[in-house]
Amino acid sequence: MAVYTKVSAEEIDRFLSRFEVGTLVSAKGIAEGVENSNYLLETTQGRYILTLYEKRVDPRDLPFFVALLDHLSAHGCRVPPMIADRQGEKIQQLCGRSACLITFLPGVSVSHPTEAQARSAGQALGAMHQALRDFNRERRNLLDHDGWRTLAEQCGPEQLDNIAPGLAKAIARELDHLDEHWPSYLPRSVIHADLFPDNVLMLGDQVTGLIDFYFSCTDVRAYDLAVTHTAWCFSDDGTDFRDPVSTALIDGYETAFALDHAEREALPTLARGAALRFLLTRAYDWINTPADAMVTRKDPQAFLHRLQYYQSHPEVFSS
Amino acid sequence: MAVYTKVSAEEIDRFLSRFEVGTLVSAKGIAEGVENSNYLLETTQGRYILTLYEKRVDPRDLPFFVALLDHLSAHGCRVPPMIADRQGEKIQQLCGRSACLITFLPGVSVSHPTEAQARSAGQALGAMHQALRDFNRERRNLLDHDGWRTLAEQCGPEQLDNIAPGLAKAIARELDHLDEHWPSYLPRSVIHADLFPDNVLMLGDQVTGLIDFYFSCTDVRAYDLAVTHTAWCFSDDGTDFRDPVSTALIDGYETAFALDHAEREALPTLARGAALRFLLTRAYDWINTPADAMVTRKDPQAFLHRLQYYQSHPEVFSS
Repeated sequence: MAVYTKVSAEEIDRFLSRFEVGTLVSAKGIAEGVENSNYLLETTQGRYILTLYEKRVDPRDLPFFVALLDHLSAHGCRVPPMIADRQGEKIQQLCGRSACLITFLPGVSVSHPTEAQARSAGQALGAMHQALRDFNRERRNLLDHDGWRTLAEQCGPEQLDNIAPGLAKAIARELDHLDEHWPSYLPRSVIHADLFPDNVLMLGDQVTGLIDFYFSCTDVRAYDLAVTHTAWCFSDDGTDFRDPVSTALIDGYETAFALDHAEREALPTLARGAALRFLLTRAYDWINTPADAMVTRKDPQAFLHRLQYYQSHPEVFSS
Repeated sequence: MAVYTKVSAEEIDRFLSRFEVGTLVSAKGIAEGVENSNYLLETTQGRYILTLYEKRVDPRDLPFFVALLDHLSAHGCRVPPMIADRQGEKIQQLCGRSACLITFLPGVSVSHPTEAQARSAGQALGAMHQALRDFNRERRNLLDHDGWRTLAEQCGPEQLDNIAPGLAKAIARELDHLDEHWPSYLPRSVIHADLFPDNVLMLGDQVTGLIDFYFSCTDVRAYDLAVTHTAWCFSDDGTDFRDPVSTALIDGYETAFALDHAEREALPTLARGAALRFLLTRAYDWINTPADAMVTRKDPQAFLHRLQYYQSHPEVFSS
C-alpha cells in the first residue's frame, strides 16, 4: 500500500502526450493493489489510472493481462482495460518500468459485504467465467495446488509452529488430503484467483468493476469461486462464517454460470485448497517480514480458521 | 507518504452523511502531505479530500488552521478550506482521529519550476501575505530561530559529523552568526513556512492552490519568502543555484506585496536561516531514521549546499 516510484508531474505530462486523452489537471499517488505504483490522473478529458509495474509483476505477463482485459471488456464485463497510445501500443515504459494507462472505474470496495453485495459479486464472477469460455490464452498459476507443498517447506516446520503450535502438522495433513482429493480433472479456464472484496468496486449493491487481475491465470475454474468464497464469507479474522453471504454468493454465481455436478461436489475440497493457499502465502510473508517493518503483516491464522471451518463443515456447499 | 489509518468505504459513507456533499462514488487513499492520512473522494456532487490527522498535527491547532484557510479563501486566495457539516462543524472525529473534509483543488505540483512558474508562486505568496494583514490569530513557530540551537544539540556533534565532516562546527558558526544578525525586529505575520513546490498546485504557469498549511505559524513575514526561495531556486541536491528562477520568484512576490527596505536588506540573513532550518530538521530526521526504514530519508547536505551558497553570495538578493 504505497507509491514506490515517484513520477514527476512533468514526466506524467510527457507520458500523456503519447495518448489522445487531453492534458493533465491533477495527479495523486494512490495506495492500491498489489505492489505496483499507481497514480490517479485527471485530464481535461476524464480520469485514468497510471500503473508502473514493480518487481511483483513480470513484464512478460503484461501482454496476457492486456488481452484478458480487452476480451472481458469486449464481452461486456466491467473491468478496466489498458488504453492504447496513438501507435496502438498499450504497454509503455516510464521511469525504467513497464507502465500502462488504464481506464478509471467508479465504485468503492466494501469491507463488510452484505448478502446483496455478495450476490452481485458472485454474478459478476460467473459472467466473467462465461465470457472467458472462448478466451484461448493461458498463464500458469504460480501458486497452484502443485506448488503448495514446496511453499510449506520454504516456510519451515519450526517457523510455522511459531505462528501457531501444531500448524506444521496441520498443514502437512491437509496437503496429504488435497493430494488425494484435488479435482484436477474439472474444467479449466482463466480465473481471477484473487477476488477479495478489495478487488471488487461497487456502488450500493451493484458491481461497477472487477480489478487487479495480476494473479489471474489458468486453473480449475470452480477454484475461482472457492477463492472468492473464502475471501467473502467470513469475518476478517476467519472466526465467524457468514452463511447468508455464502448462499448469496453461490446463488449469484449460478445465475450467470451453471456449475456442473462434479464442480459442485468438489467445492468443499476446492475451498479447503483456497484457504490453504492463503494460509501458506500469509505464513510465508509473516515469516519473511520483520515484525517492525512498516508493512502491515496479515495474520495467517485468519485462513487457518477458515480451513478448519471448511474441514468440519463440508455441508455449507450443499444446496 | 502513505495512508496510515485505513478507513473502510462503509465508514466514509457514514462520515459523508453528516455533510451536504452527495453520496460516495469513489475513495482512494492518497500519498500526500505531511504525516496525515488522506483520501481522495468522489461523490455525486464533486471531489473532496478527507484528512485524518496523525501524530504530527496537534488537534488543538486545528481551529487555527480552519480559521486561517477560511480567512485566505474569503480574501480570494486559492487555498483548500475545510467544509462545514450540517451543524456548521468543520473539525470532525473519525476512526479515533481528528478529521476534516476539505475542498479538492485541481493542479499538479511541479518538480522543476520554470521562471514563469516561480513568478506565479511568488505572486501567490505575496497575495497571501497581503490577505493576512488583517488576520489576527497567532500560532507559535515550533521551528523558529530560537529553537535551532536546541535542535543542533539534539542532533549531537558526532552524529552531525557523520553526515559530513565538519558539519557540527559549520552549524555552530552559523548559529552564532544568526544570533548576532537575526532580524527579529522585522514585521511579523502568519506565514506558510513550508512553501516547497510540493505545496503549490499549478496548471501550466498558473497557481491553482497553495496547500499543506500544517507548518503555518506566526514569524517574521519576509522569512516566508526566504523559505520559498531556498525551496524553489536550487536543484534538488542544492548544488545548482537557478538565478533566473530566483529573480522571477522575488519579482512575482513584489507585484503582490512590497518588501520594505529593512526586509530586503535582511533577505540574505533570512535565507541563511531558512537553509539552516531545513538542514537541521533533515539532519535530525536522518540521524533518527534507520537507514533500512521504508521511509525515504532526505539528504541534509542538499541544504548545507544552499546555506554555503547563501553565505558566499549575499548579492543574489540585490535588485
